[in-house]
Amino acid sequence: MTIDSMVEGVHFKLGWGTPEALGARALTVNLSDIAAMGGVPTACVVNLAIRPGLGTRFFDRLYAGLGGAAAAAGVDVVGGNITAADALAITIALLGETGPRVLRRDAARPGDEIFVTGTVGDAALGWRILAGKLPARGAARKFLIDRFLNPIARLAAGQRLVRMSPAPTARNPRSARQKPAPAAIDISDGLWQDLGHVLDRSGVGAEIEAPAIPLSPAYRAVKGDDLELALGGGEDYELLFCWPPGNSAAALTRRLGVPVHRIGKIVGGRGATLLGADAALTRAAARAGGWDQLRPQDTR
Amino acid sequence: MTIDSMVEGVHFKLGWGTPEALGARALTVNLSDIAAMGGVPTACVVNLAIRPGLGTRFFDRLYAGLGGAAAAAGVDVVGGNITAADALAITIALLGETGPRVLRRDAARPGDEIFVTGTVGDAALGWRILAGKLPARGAARKFLIDRFLNPIARLAAGQRLVRMSPAPTARNPRSARQKPAPAAIDISDGLWQDLGHVLDRSGVGAEIEAPAIPLSPAYRAVKGDDLELALGGGEDYELLFCWPPGNSAAALTRRLGVPVHRIGKIVGGRGATLLGADAALTRAAARAGGWDQLRPQDTR
Repeated sequence: MTIDSMVEGVHFKLGWGTPEALGARALTVNLSDIAAMGGVPTACVVNLAIRPGLGTRFFDRLYAGLGGAAAAAGVDVVGGNITAADALAITIALLGETGPRVLRRDAARPGDEIFVTGTVGDAALGWRILAGKLPARGAARKFLIDRFLNPIARLAAGQRLVRMSPAPTARNPRSARQKPAPAAIDISDGLWQDLGHVLDRSGVGAEIEAPAIPLSPAYRAVKGDDLELALGGGEDYELLFCWPPGNSAAALTRRLGVPVHRIGKIVGGRGATLLGADAALTRAAARAGGWDQLRPQDTR
Repeated sequence: MTIDSMVEGVHFKLGWGTPEALGARALTVNLSDIAAMGGVPTACVVNLAIRPGLGTRFFDRLYAGLGGAAAAAGVDVVGGNITAADALAITIALLGETGPRVLRRDAARPGDEIFVTGTVGDAALGWRILAGKLPARGAARKFLIDRFLNPIARLAAGQRLVRMSPAPTARNPRSARQKPAPAAIDISDGLWQDLGHVLDRSGVGAEIEAPAIPLSPAYRAVKGDDLELALGGGEDYELLFCWPPGNSAAALTRRLGVPVHRIGKIVGGRGATLLGADAALTRAAARAGGWDQLRPQDTR
């Protein structure tokens, strides 16, 4: 059971996209939390804080988008509430089911390799383009904005991850006995911060290889090799997960049905180290929580 | 699964009560929805929209109140989310369980008698006193404000109602075979409006006896026999339920463990008729939804 909220002026502005996309996105950010546990989403309730100036047509369209996303994910919208407010806010609580195995943040073990699905940093760039903070043109602009407005929750990948049994290895004999589900989290706050949650909860450290961070062609077109938003920008809703060594990214890509890249490994100790980046970024990465301020917050 | 939200400036002002009471009340309004189905609440998630100017101490106290109410109701707070906003808003989604029988809004049948727990209208008066719209002093003032700030969800009464089998009667032979659960709703929007939901969903009408509406001594001290807010004011979180004839209010009071009053009966047709009131109130009651504007909304 999870809950998430989108507030006008904080997380979005109305002019940025269609009401349908807004409704779909409000559910998707919750679906992503279920995906990160390997769950199957089942039912949701919706709280709508409405402000003056938005008519029936707007809410019909918002609910159409939300309903479409719910239907596509097999989710029943089972109830809701409407309240008055000064700003539009859509808060959705979502219920999901799992079997006895579930992806957890505290399951990372030294030796595990760290993977991410898709590419990271795109949504943060899209948000900055929409907010007028970053110039971009053409296909790159379109792609990055779309990544922000229309995220995809990695539900199928999460469900496959939880069903897959890590192959037992000499370094991970535990997996042969207990078949633990791998550690995973969805990248909503930014790769570095969400990785930090896994490390903190698991009591381990990580080494991340900067050149291995997966960037989209659009990201490269706008930012080149600057990894700041790939590491610090949120809202991508990709999955980060850990896996015992012995599986290539190509094999995991085939098994999960989504592009997967290996970005580093879990080590003993605490905190994450960034390898292979320029000195400034390496120093920034070494500062705990150093990218908090880069989250797309407060659009006003 | 249910969701409800309380927004600063719309549903409450901070100076009205303690942060603890605010946190407890945010859960209670959800517990009441579960009570109205005869369910057992199990787990909740909390979305907190926070604004500048509220410190850690405030939120510690708010969560202490929420946690206390959750513990008292056997509810686990299993997750949450925090977002920035211009106004404080607490949105809680609550999960509950039921057996195969559940209290429903569509189960009222002609011949059923209509009961309410406790007294009605108190919270609406308390809200008006807090908002400076109604003068009141002494014990009555204290009681009415407390009824608004510290509502009680009728969980045990709802659970007993759903377990009790209406005694079969000549007028209700169906109950002997099917043991249907009675119709019920919690009085959150006001007695008249919430009764209307039951009537609409059940496809029946009702005759309500104005002198039978249960008023607290404090209500009478402030408003005398003026029933307007007893019928139109919300936020009481009492239960309204229907029951086949043959059970006295006294017997139901003993069985449910809360004060119960009979206020009228379900009849064929549509809509509710108010009997035994003065002409102005009778006319107002006859206008469908005529009390919507009396709801405690928009304190600004």
